[in-house]
Amino acid sequence: MTPEEKIVEMSLTLPPAPPLGGVYKPVIINGTTAYFSGHGPMTDDGKTYMTGRLGHDMTVEEGQAAARQVGLTLLASMRAQLGNLNRVKQIVKSLAFVSSTDDFYDQPQVVNGYSELFGEVFGAEIGIGARSAIGTNTLPGNIPVEIEVIVELIG
Amino acid sequence: MTPEEKIVEMSLTLPPAPPLGGVYKPVIINGTTAYFSGHGPMTDDGKTYMTGRLGHDMTVEEGQAAARQVGLTLLASMRAQLGNLNRVKQIVKSLAFVSSTDDFYDQPQVVNGYSELFGEVFGAEIGIGARSAIGTNTLPGNIPVEIEVIVELIG
Amino acid sequence: MTPEEKIVEMSLTLPPAPPLGGVYKPVIINGTTAYFSGHGPMTDDGKTYMTGRLGHDMTVEEGQAAARQVGLTLLASMRAQLGNLNRVKQIVKSLAFVSSTDDFYDQPQVVNGYSELFGEVFGAEIGIGARSAIGTNTLPGNIPVEIEVIVELIG
Repeated sequence: MTPEEKIVEMSLTLPPAPPLGGVYKPVIINGTTAYFSGHGPMTDDGKTYMTGRLGHDMTVEEGQAAARQVGLTLLASMRAQLGNLNRVKQIVKSLAFVSSTDDFYDQPQVVNGYSELFGEVFGAEIGIGARSAIGTNTLPGNIPVEIEVIVELIG
Repeated sequence: MTPEEKIVEMSLTLPPAPPLGGVYKPVIINGTTAYFSGHGPMTDDGKTYMTGRLGHDMTVEEGQAAARQVGLTLLASMRAQLGNLNRVKQIVKSLAFVSSTDDFYDQPQVVNGYSELFGEVFGAEIGIGARSAIGTNTLPGNIPVEIEVIVELIG
Repeated sequence: MTPEEKIVEMSLTLPPAPPLGGVYKPVIINGTTAYFSGHGPMTDDGKTYMTGRLGHDMTVEEGQAAARQVGLTLLASMRAQLGNLNRVKQIVKSLAFVSSTDDFYDQPQVVNGYSELFGEVFGAEIGIGARSAIGTNTLPGNIPVEIEVIVELIG
């Protein structure tokens, strides 16, 4: 099953591809390597982001849902930029930041919400890449999770 | 107009290429892809960095000026390492960290000070790449902004 | 002397290659470029990570020892994934996060503990690459240092 077929089978609703939040491009493709900018959890209205900080006003489960929403937002952005998710050969490397209080240490569990979605859509071999999960005290617009990703495309 | 001509036309003053602040190299070039180390806002004396934290002792406007100064420092480093800014084919991906209080959320606006400079020097097509803007509670030497960048060179 | 010979000569003890701490792969190799996931300072029992925050309950010297331990953990992971450290052509870019209080500014000195180890094992030319050292308020499992690295392999 292709990623595009999988999205239909899973009945996933992608939010609109997010508008730019600053002076940057959503993706730069260098050869067959696509560098996607940091994305947040865009809601289905296409304007509002989920907000919160882990350990303060968000549980691990809510954080996982936010990380999954970042994944859906990235899928929307990939489809808009690439035309088609089936062009993805490999999710290479994801760098994920989780807004956290000083004593919150479960960033990997939170980011799994994103990684598991990508594993389902692309399959574990293609969809699960290398990853770093990092805590931080604050993110743009008070979003709980921001993820950037390097993707290898079919040549 | 080439980037080098643009620097003259804009009457830009680049600080000296910064001395190393630890055990690393300013850039590694792998094929035609150049990975530049994290840079801070070096002042024109070539020794002192701008300092501050957004939301604490620095306004958004001051943060933008610091981000622009990081851009000037990166240009100095690129010229020193590459010989010539005209070798830049594409600014691929920038990862920008902004030292912030817990309730400061305008990291993208701050980092725009860097991105707008690169857009002017290299032109929007080449100079504006993919980007992530991340908050953090502290950076080396109390600098307000640190940026690393991946650059594609003319082969 | 090859890196594998150097490890013997330096009498280095590598910890076991770390188990996965979430939904990701330890490395993705894209062409001859290997992207290693963020690693922490695994202790020799292969289960426990060093913990602490710089400026709070850890000195710079202890942070350097932790950064060196991240380096040993990365070497264990590289050997497990690549079969042999002699396949490394160049350490390209390291991104290092140091768990820090708001007023701790010596992240580069801490990360040097990692960079100096790699300089010894691989030699300064190959082992010391581009680098960013970033502070953050918290890391997974309360580890003091997390480092991800891009490595160019012999083709």
